[in-house]
Amino acid sequence: MTTVLEKFEKLKTEHAPGQEVRQKTPAFEELLIGEKLEGRTVDFSHGDVDAFLPTPGAFEEFSDGVHSGGKQAYTVYRGLADLREILSVRLTSFTGAPVNAADNLIITPGTQGALFLSVAATVAAGDKVAIVQPDYFANRKLVEFFEAEMLPVQLDYLGTDKAAGLDLNQLEAAFRDGARVFVFSNPNNPTGAVYSTEEIDAIAALADRYGAMVIVDQLYSRLLYEGTEYQHLRAVGGTGRDNVITIMGPSKTESLSGYRLGVAFGPSSVIERMERLQAIVSLRAAGYNQAVLQTWFSEPDGWMSERIKLHQAIRDDLLTRFRARADVAVRTPQAGSYMFAKLPRLRVSPIDFVKILRHQATVIVTPGSEFSPHTASSIRLNFSQNHAAATGAVERLVTLIERYREARP
Amino acid sequence: MTTVLEKFEKLKTEHAPGQEVRQKTPAFEELLIGEKLEGRTVDFSHGDVDAFLPTPGAFEEFSDGVHSGGKQAYTVYRGLADLREILSVRLTSFTGAPVNAADNLIITPGTQGALFLSVAATVAAGDKVAIVQPDYFANRKLVEFFEAEMLPVQLDYLGTDKAAGLDLNQLEAAFRDGARVFVFSNPNNPTGAVYSTEEIDAIAALADRYGAMVIVDQLYSRLLYEGTEYQHLRAVGGTGRDNVITIMGPSKTESLSGYRLGVAFGPSSVIERMERLQAIVSLRAAGYNQAVLQTWFSEPDGWMSERIKLHQAIRDDLLTRFRARADVAVRTPQAGSYMFAKLPRLRVSPIDFVKILRHQATVIVTPGSEFSPHTASSIRLNFSQNHAAATGAVERLVTLIERYREARP
Repeated sequence: MTTVLEKFEKLKTEHAPGQEVRQKTPAFEELLIGEKLEGRTVDFSHGDVDAFLPTPGAFEEFSDGVHSGGKQAYTVYRGLADLREILSVRLTSFTGAPVNAADNLIITPGTQGALFLSVAATVAAGDKVAIVQPDYFANRKLVEFFEAEMLPVQLDYLGTDKAAGLDLNQLEAAFRDGARVFVFSNPNNPTGAVYSTEEIDAIAALADRYGAMVIVDQLYSRLLYEGTEYQHLRAVGGTGRDNVITIMGPSKTESLSGYRLGVAFGPSSVIERMERLQAIVSLRAAGYNQAVLQTWFSEPDGWMSERIKLHQAIRDDLLTRFRARADVAVRTPQAGSYMFAKLPRLRVSPIDFVKILRHQATVIVTPGSEFSPHTASSIRLNFSQNHAAATGAVERLVTLIERYREARP
Repeated sequence: MTTVLEKFEKLKTEHAPGQEVRQKTPAFEELLIGEKLEGRTVDFSHGDVDAFLPTPGAFEEFSDGVHSGGKQAYTVYRGLADLREILSVRLTSFTGAPVNAADNLIITPGTQGALFLSVAATVAAGDKVAIVQPDYFANRKLVEFFEAEMLPVQLDYLGTDKAAGLDLNQLEAAFRDGARVFVFSNPNNPTGAVYSTEEIDAIAALADRYGAMVIVDQLYSRLLYEGTEYQHLRAVGGTGRDNVITIMGPSKTESLSGYRLGVAFGPSSVIERMERLQAIVSLRAAGYNQAVLQTWFSEPDGWMSERIKLHQAIRDDLLTRFRARADVAVRTPQAGSYMFAKLPRLRVSPIDFVKILRHQATVIVTPGSEFSPHTASSIRLNFSQNHAAATGAVERLVTLIERYREARP
């Protein structure tokens, strides 16, 4: 039997986004080269909700929620019924396959809550779960927490721009080896890669063939850049799939992270189990907060396209700055606001470089080791930031890469 | 290995408070006797936040939180540092033993979140856990979810009013049999019994002797009625205990349930594990909501004593109405707003009677089977309600007890 201490050893969070302030500062002064670089602090570990403001009307909906009192404070565990009705129509339209409000949808405390519940509702100790590398770090941690076995599937995100780069043979091998759950994010976190229609069709076909459940985290699927096509897995075949759980939420693109709202939609049997678990995990997404979902998929005309345009402009400026150095490899994000840059060999470890960045350049990034054991030399940036501050920060970052770069042989 | 389906079978929520609307309505028309009773609907499954309003200033703190932006939206997983500083001072003062803000305290999505994380951080599959019967239903469900073994300890809450009535011999036997975690609520949910100083001292001594961790849910420990003394377990011995995790929150007494806020405080090693888990369960209590904790333990002068007085008056009126019938047994709640009434033998099953109550009397209560296998003939009422509506509802309830009572032999 695994003890509690063993179980939690794998859940360390000190390098997780936003947790940097809780790091014990080691004596790393001796690693430092040169002086600090002046510039406005940029925390690329998450989006800046002061640069990209929450959806207009969100606070007013919350306020109305508070004033409607008990009805809004105490919803059923899966979330207010009226609201699920509204969302089911919008999500049906967005994804292209039907969502039934009564049975197929649960409102959760953030997409993190939805991810936790959906993994818990489908994975038991000893099960095998296919996980993409690199992908959102919580996927791996959830599998480990539930004492399941992870079967990694590589994503060659730097090798192509026509697809996300999933190794479909490896995915099939994982299913053949007994994996009955596959968890992945699309758009991919941390790279911003979007799975091609062919890849999504292939995932659907493999899941059908092997009787597997697929949990797809589509958190960023609304923020698509010019020229990007997006295929919803749940809509492959047209009538909705009973082996797909889709996770979304208004935390990122809509800057509503401070309200902690997410949804999962999928087969009623899984949603039912998720609700039972939510009852003992957190009861429900905060009742008043749920009201904010009224604004979701109902933003003012032009608001989303403007938000996409502004993010695309930042993306392009950062890419230009990274690519000015031939030894930094970065894929063009097709969606979302994550960028994943592979650094050259440095004189210090990647983890120390991340600390040095914070100390000498007031730039906070998330180390690539969080996303896969094979991406330790990469860093993730959430570029949903003030445009000028972000470009300034990446200029300092590139300066420090040069400063700490290992001498060429 | 336990499968996912087996694991969730035990987590059924259809009789849980607030979930009644999701019950599939069976054909129970044939069970009905007599006509419906007119009267205002009262939902005793939870407190009425329209009758007892949230703490003054709560919404304003939330609003300030939203306007302070990213700092409030993205806190570290354990909650905003400044706020933990403020709360640690207040909780030290309230409980009588030191709480260190940096290491000993975590802010969670409701006390339910705190309970889930603290059980998860101390209990692994196969472990033995001592649980009081009757007690809050989630305690049992959490132990079952983590595939631990439950060792029940009986509470003879009807047999005494000098103490809560815990069977200390049974608790010691549980520890002797290998339980290393003990979970209980004080004041007890569902009975409103408060553990005596002697009982709390004895629990502390037993936990020390057997090296056990105690999780104590003190959700209602601020709402104490006249003449009630309350001993905080964590303060036994005076200097703070490293084997006690205390759970509290402003959901109930303060009517802030719609914001989903709770805290756990205890040994740094356990709080650290809870934070790691919170990172993959829900990230954090909703950032903006955390700001509402500014109002906690800082209510306007006289506000709390007035709230206690009003609840005590409702309590006394309901007790009088129940006790007008010699065959209903109910203990006087010493704290909180739960009342647990043991009904006489009826012509219908207790679960059916609860449905009949809803149907014929528009009165919603929680069945006693949720709290212990031995209390199926009891019902729990949260009497934090409009005073007149609550007394009217209990009058209808008593009428229906009479109507459905089995003929005396």
